Amino acid sequence: MQQISLITLGIGDMARSTRFYAEGFGWTPVFETPEITFYQMNGLVFSTFLRAALEEDMNQTGLRPGGAYAMAHNVGSEGAVTALMERLITFGGSLLRAADAPEHGGFRGYVADPDGHPWEIAWNPAWPIDGAGHVTFGL
Amino acid sequence: MQQISLITLGIGDMARSTRFYAEGFGWTPVFETPEITFYQMNGLVFSTFLRAALEEDMNQTGLRPGGAYAMAHNVGSEGAVTALMERLITFGGSLLRAADAPEHGGFRGYVADPDGHPWEIAWNPAWPIDGAGHVTFGL
Repeated sequence: MQQISLITLGIGDMARSTRFYAEGFGWTPVFETPEITFYQMNGLVFSTFLRAALEEDMNQTGLRPGGAYAMAHNVGSEGAVTALMERLITFGGSLLRAADAPEHGGFRGYVADPDGHPWEIAWNPAWPIDGAGHVTFGL
Repeated sequence: MQQISLITLGIGDMARSTRFYAEGFGWTPVFETPEITFYQMNGLVFSTFLRAALEEDMNQTGLRPGGAYAMAHNVGSEGAVTALMERLITFGGSLLRAADAPEHGGFRGYVADPDGHPWEIAWNPAWPIDGAGHVTFGL
């Protein structure tokens, strides 16, 4: 099945991370412990996990923040892109790329979370989003 | 809305990456160019994007593979975890952690894709998956 069940981000400080996701994005956790916070998303689960605990679970050491990947959160208009990016920066994010229009259309910018995990904030009129937040690819 | 629209992984070689995702996971792309491949997933889109192009889009340079994050793909049984991990390794993945039972229950291991992006392959009986692949958090 073409399915991603969970995305987990390793973080350094739970309060700092929760401020960004709960107050910046406005998301409500479904379950929290001092070590891990889960958010129910659109057909998958998102979690923030203390980096040392993630390393132990993955059997890895010295994992660094950031990297060659990005998550995207799509919104309904150009203005909503700019407004959300400002809000994310207010609540601990850092600007990676100011929003502008890519060649393929729409509008997007990038903000890193307090641990350096990159988020694209985009308006993409070609990709419908249903009432449950499910996103469908389109051209 | 609690919603992730897209996950993009930066990759070095499209053929090598597509072999892993199409033949290892068994996923069919919805759209392909020499630079980017999109897969329609469970309420979100997954893409593999040549690293240099992702860096340009993100306004970043020198992004490194791997990092303090993991995606998870859940399956229906312990045996399916082991079988899929073997298949992913056959098609270019590397073992990060052999599958075993975590304290909180279920069964899981980790495999990196050919570019070092970490995937957890898990059986988690507490998290229901519906016919469309939508995953719900559970305890």
